[in-house]
Amino acid sequence: MQGVLFIPELRQLLAARDHETVREVFADLHPSDGAELISGLAPHEILDILAIIGNRSSIEIFEQLDLAVQKVCLEEADPKAILPFIEEMSSDDRVDLIKEVEPEIADRLMPLLAQAERDDIRRLLAYEEGTAGAIMTTEYASVDKDITATEALNRLRMQAPNKETVYYVYVVDHDRRLKGFVTLKDVLLTPPSQKIEQIMEEDVISVSIDENVEEVADKISHYDFLAIPVIDNDRRLVGIVTVDDILDVVEEEATEDIYHLAAAGKPLDYLNTGIFKIAKERILWLFILVLTGFVAGAVMQRFQSQLTAVIALVFFIPVLSGTGGNAGTQTTTVIIRGLATGELEMKDIFRILFKEIRVALLVGLAMGVLTAVRAILTSPDPRLVVPLSLTVGLAMVGCVILAIAAGAILPILFKKIGLDPALMSGPFISSLMDVFTLLLYLGLAAAIIPV
Amino acid sequence: MQGVLFIPELRQLLAARDHETVREVFADLHPSDGAELISGLAPHEILDILAIIGNRSSIEIFEQLDLAVQKVCLEEADPKAILPFIEEMSSDDRVDLIKEVEPEIADRLMPLLAQAERDDIRRLLAYEEGTAGAIMTTEYASVDKDITATEALNRLRMQAPNKETVYYVYVVDHDRRLKGFVTLKDVLLTPPSQKIEQIMEEDVISVSIDENVEEVADKISHYDFLAIPVIDNDRRLVGIVTVDDILDVVEEEATEDIYHLAAAGKPLDYLNTGIFKIAKERILWLFILVLTGFVAGAVMQRFQSQLTAVIALVFFIPVLSGTGGNAGTQTTTVIIRGLATGELEMKDIFRILFKEIRVALLVGLAMGVLTAVRAILTSPDPRLVVPLSLTVGLAMVGCVILAIAAGAILPILFKKIGLDPALMSGPFISSLMDVFTLLLYLGLAAAIIPV
Repeated sequence: MQGVLFIPELRQLLAARDHETVREVFADLHPSDGAELISGLAPHEILDILAIIGNRSSIEIFEQLDLAVQKVCLEEADPKAILPFIEEMSSDDRVDLIKEVEPEIADRLMPLLAQAERDDIRRLLAYEEGTAGAIMTTEYASVDKDITATEALNRLRMQAPNKETVYYVYVVDHDRRLKGFVTLKDVLLTPPSQKIEQIMEEDVISVSIDENVEEVADKISHYDFLAIPVIDNDRRLVGIVTVDDILDVVEEEATEDIYHLAAAGKPLDYLNTGIFKIAKERILWLFILVLTGFVAGAVMQRFQSQLTAVIALVFFIPVLSGTGGNAGTQTTTVIIRGLATGELEMKDIFRILFKEIRVALLVGLAMGVLTAVRAILTSPDPRLVVPLSLTVGLAMVGCVILAIAAGAILPILFKKIGLDPALMSGPFISSLMDVFTLLLYLGLAAAIIPV
Repeated sequence: MQGVLFIPELRQLLAARDHETVREVFADLHPSDGAELISGLAPHEILDILAIIGNRSSIEIFEQLDLAVQKVCLEEADPKAILPFIEEMSSDDRVDLIKEVEPEIADRLMPLLAQAERDDIRRLLAYEEGTAGAIMTTEYASVDKDITATEALNRLRMQAPNKETVYYVYVVDHDRRLKGFVTLKDVLLTPPSQKIEQIMEEDVISVSIDENVEEVADKISHYDFLAIPVIDNDRRLVGIVTVDDILDVVEEEATEDIYHLAAAGKPLDYLNTGIFKIAKERILWLFILVLTGFVAGAVMQRFQSQLTAVIALVFFIPVLSGTGGNAGTQTTTVIIRGLATGELEMKDIFRILFKEIRVALLVGLAMGVLTAVRAILTSPDPRLVVPLSLTVGLAMVGCVILAIAAGAILPILFKKIGLDPALMSGPFISSLMDVFTLLLYLGLAAAIIPV
């Protein structure tokens, strides 16, 4: 990446019509880097540069552009000029792009494509978001089981230029039913006259077309695959999902989990989303959380006489509800992440809960003692020292234990009844704990401190 | 996975010495599934089963076992019996295991290994955790630049059984300096007599041995590679990192980010970690957060006269500090995750901040109106309706704007001065906001509500 140009230099080259240098610059760059470089330009400039580069390289660069950039280029360009890019894109990326653009643009483009490609796009469009069908590519390498290793190698040589990967080769019968699987390594290592049938693995691990992408990712990761075949209800091979797409899925899933845990709504394309939409995602959750805040207020109102008589009680509310919320957030995060990565399983429920109860006792005691000491040191009235520090200390122990228990039990319960455990977010646990902490604290105050 | 046995059946087979059936069961299973199945057994049972399965299959199953299970097996087993597994493991997994076991065990094992393998382990052991060197494997395929495509294919056939991947082939000179790179697909597609030199890509994208694993993951993901070469300071090829290891890295990094954001400490092996260690990770953060809670209490104490005169002020503290905390958590999460995935970059700072300020105004107004209405409806004293709802509403608008600003600015500031932005966790922002919310709220109350 040394000596790479920046946007202004690139614009100068365009203005000077120095096509030779433009071509040289991009010849030295990996398509991914070329795509990153031109992403900062206006759509018409991107199209100019791709036209200058020409041939296979420009197609590879176009494929590596972000979906949002591809979209604006497609909307800007003459459909005929952009056709080669669309024709040559891998089938999964192409469908993602078609989904993204305005329907008019897609309608103008589709008639220009060959019948086979139109059918391919229509079929892929039909699969639901978040399923194997929606992220698979139809460009897989396949061979007949009756041919020899040498013949297979020759077929693969012919197929290679148009396939997403030739390293995994699927064996199908005349109905395209998946019968087996060989790696290119197996084909290379086998004696030339050996039949594919004899070297293929018959128990092929596959995913079904409507399987969730998370499960697809788990399988690819569990088996260390480079790709996994996708089959329809009749066990017919319809596509493959490759590991590079799964890397993106894993990252997106993690982002979703993180947003859930922070009650931040759905992940949006931040820089390209309007403020009303961003605000809406956040307000929705804040609104629910405000309501629990009102409940917490109502709890205080019930204990108004205690609070008025001993105003010092009020001073400990932030530390109690804060610590309860934080301890709950920690626990729910550990449990939810463990369930998401498979480190924790539902069969471990009782082990987890027993462990959390003991952790809660330790953490609760540590925090309780700390807070009681603070109460002793700051008590405004000598007669209040003992009852106030007792109330505050016990409330802290209780609310930490409650918070940790809620943080551990609620996500497991949610999972048990079929809801997404990640809905049990940190902010939600915190808000819930506000109510319970106040009930416990002020209830204890009413019992311990005579008014 | 149909017809797979469970632990009790497996134990029965062991007790009945029905070795034939054991071998049949595992012959039908992918090594990853075989490994998962036996993970529930005691170490000596695992070793028995592996001995029964024997040959190459048992080695593949051992390699797929979790590190923790490999470790207990290694500690239980006769070093000589386990030697074949250690010898045949891929070099990165082997070093991970050696790092994990007690030094005595490693010392007993090392002399049994061949000199070359001992050297390989010692070299890999020296690389720091979290660097390319620590996760790379030394089993890569390489060829000379002077040979032809046919000769290369023959070399690869010879190398294949011992290499982690033969699909990416690295071209090195006599000093093992990295000169180029070809894919097996390129080799297959090229005329047999063509020299490797003529088809190889000379601008090889590589990582250096001490590069952070996150950067390695970013590069593999950016270029959609199956593997990336690792070079030392003299550009000598020392290993490769494969995409399957990167999948694990991406998942681990996401877990770390999630834990950071929840102030839950470092991720631990939950089920196998004692409660004191778990509690310690959490208490450390809670302790810091408790201190900010005490500051919030001190703020209240300063405004004691307002609180005593108008106790209704107290009832809105949970909803104000809760909403401030939640809005701050949402924002900091969106910003930190954006920075971590590369969706947001430091060059976008001002765009991000400008956007967040407008989002903050929208969210603040919505929440402020809601809370003011609540204050109007529940005000205990008709004379207080206007000043109380005004105070509460303004405080809500202000604290949401403050929280969103803090949630956006602090992580960016942390990144700017070279700290991990993820330290700016949700709980930390929430605790910080408690203090500022109270200052703002009670300050407004002192100004608006005459005591």
